[in-house]
Amino acid sequence: MQVFSYEQLYRFTKSVFIAIGCNEADAVLATEVLLSADLRGIDSHGVARLSGYVRLWQAKRINAKPNIAVIHETPSTAVIDGDAGLGLVVAPFAMQVAIDKAKQVGTGWVSVQNSNHFGIAGYHAMMALKEDMIGISMTNASALVAPTFSIEKMLGTNPIAVAIPAGNQPPFVADFATTTAANGKLEILQRKNAEAPIGWVQDENGNSSTDANILKKKGALLPLGTDREHGSHKGYALGSIVDIFSAILSGASYGPWAPPFPAYIPMPENMPGKGLGHFFGAMRIDAFRPANDFKAHMDQWIERFSNSTPAEGHDKVLIPGDPEREMELIRKKEGIPIIDSVVEDLKNTGAIFDITGL
Amino acid sequence: MQVFSYEQLYRFTKSVFIAIGCNEADAVLATEVLLSADLRGIDSHGVARLSGYVRLWQAKRINAKPNIAVIHETPSTAVIDGDAGLGLVVAPFAMQVAIDKAKQVGTGWVSVQNSNHFGIAGYHAMMALKEDMIGISMTNASALVAPTFSIEKMLGTNPIAVAIPAGNQPPFVADFATTTAANGKLEILQRKNAEAPIGWVQDENGNSSTDANILKKKGALLPLGTDREHGSHKGYALGSIVDIFSAILSGASYGPWAPPFPAYIPMPENMPGKGLGHFFGAMRIDAFRPANDFKAHMDQWIERFSNSTPAEGHDKVLIPGDPEREMELIRKKEGIPIIDSVVEDLKNTGAIFDITGL
Repeated sequence: MQVFSYEQLYRFTKSVFIAIGCNEADAVLATEVLLSADLRGIDSHGVARLSGYVRLWQAKRINAKPNIAVIHETPSTAVIDGDAGLGLVVAPFAMQVAIDKAKQVGTGWVSVQNSNHFGIAGYHAMMALKEDMIGISMTNASALVAPTFSIEKMLGTNPIAVAIPAGNQPPFVADFATTTAANGKLEILQRKNAEAPIGWVQDENGNSSTDANILKKKGALLPLGTDREHGSHKGYALGSIVDIFSAILSGASYGPWAPPFPAYIPMPENMPGKGLGHFFGAMRIDAFRPANDFKAHMDQWIERFSNSTPAEGHDKVLIPGDPEREMELIRKKEGIPIIDSVVEDLKNTGAIFDITGL
Repeated sequence: MQVFSYEQLYRFTKSVFIAIGCNEADAVLATEVLLSADLRGIDSHGVARLSGYVRLWQAKRINAKPNIAVIHETPSTAVIDGDAGLGLVVAPFAMQVAIDKAKQVGTGWVSVQNSNHFGIAGYHAMMALKEDMIGISMTNASALVAPTFSIEKMLGTNPIAVAIPAGNQPPFVADFATTTAANGKLEILQRKNAEAPIGWVQDENGNSSTDANILKKKGALLPLGTDREHGSHKGYALGSIVDIFSAILSGASYGPWAPPFPAYIPMPENMPGKGLGHFFGAMRIDAFRPANDFKAHMDQWIERFSNSTPAEGHDKVLIPGDPEREMELIRKKEGIPIIDSVVEDLKNTGAIFDITGL
């Protein structure tokens, strides 16, 4: 484990994005989006993925100079073609279109085709906050999840993020995979050689398993809810909604045809659409009520929930976004710890382009 | 258990709504919405609740002659005051406003204050299907659910419904409480004197419990996910988003202040808003892509997921909406079975107004 300052990681990461051909603005944006994950403590979606993006670029699945374009629109909607660009760049572009439409007609809804992995969903949703809007962000992803009663990997971990502004209180920011556990949590267990809790994964026959490596043995992640008795059909429905909004509304590839993130996995055959899909929404608060009235009630909501009686062994009840915001304060001050294998991987990635500095 | 035809229940239920003062059109609509739950097999939300609505009317919490009005709007949004009307009538009005806005600008989003229980969320979302739109419906509800790490009941079971049209395949219709199990499932166990599975409820100290009556003993329902290790913070976030979209965007009462459905429970003190809140969305498919292209891909999505390899002991993988649609076909033909205690309760409700016919 080594600790790096945000600035050091920023310089390194930006240099890599410049090296693959991004222009200055795109490299800055991609770096900011990627590192927002590290700052917020979602280590699986930060610099740890940089080499993965580079390998996708090497495999010509990522276009570093995309011509991102609106290909269809109405006053409150748009479909965007990401031109195989970095999702880290395509997604903020699309979210800005949603925000601009919300300024005009109250809300904006944008579905994106032909994109790639977009980092953490929360970054894009949070873009709406400074505009006094509610932000919504979701994406489909490589198929790792079996629907309820199935043994096939059909859906990605398909996250949903919703960011809601408050007044004196910090904003409400939910950002979660629609599975019991995100794949990143499984990867942490793999590195530790530890077992997974019952309910996170199943084996090739659909039986519950504690093997953190079971996905490599025809196993699958389980939808939020874990099993039918505990509502896995709800997690399956949520993941499906994300898939349909992100990929069928836009014309991207869906379900088991979603392009895989690891570049060594061949692209699925007979893909029905183009690339990965995302979906974004922006709702102007004052399209519903005066923003100050809304924020006063959000403050009261947050205070009441924070102060609800905690169960034994817990100091307080958390509001979605609390842990990530607290982590960001710590890491901005104390730096970002990165495990040795990721540091090694980053150095190797830098070496491809003669980039040092880690 | 007795079996009634849809027509018999329809005549009885409509007579009761007329008797409390609904006009003809509202009585027809309220009956259709209420009985759609019985047809679809969601028995907890159908005629079994009729006496509850009547008791709310007797307690002057439901206004049978509401003046439902749009109190704020933009091209893609509206806020509606339900004037304390039956949610069964207010909700379809609001969903129609969302649909009309979608016709104009691509999407429509409507938040509702001052309403009451609206039946099944799915009915309202499904109104969008015949317009080639995606329908979204949600509502807050009486507080029965403890947030992760809390022992206080702060949220309702706050359901979400999403209805998505397909082409040759039946539509995708998800309709689920954001808890591990809906309260109706707990009520079924109570009547059978059976235990609840671990993970549905907790006791007054926040420990897991199998007591189906634990809610009467300061226990609480658990968010989808059951515990922190299995993602209950995600179910808590989902229930919170429903609460905020339905009640804070509209100016209704939220969280623990949501008005309780049972008329014998006093209204919470210092309610911050008016009545119960709902939230509806309608997205025109062709505001994103040509509807036929979308539907062809939805058909392929549904076929691929239906035919994904089932786990041992399961014939096929279900698409959200499959079980309810199959139940509706059966019950339209064979009638609707109602347990004796509910039949008795309905007869007593009819007797208040000299209505017979069951």
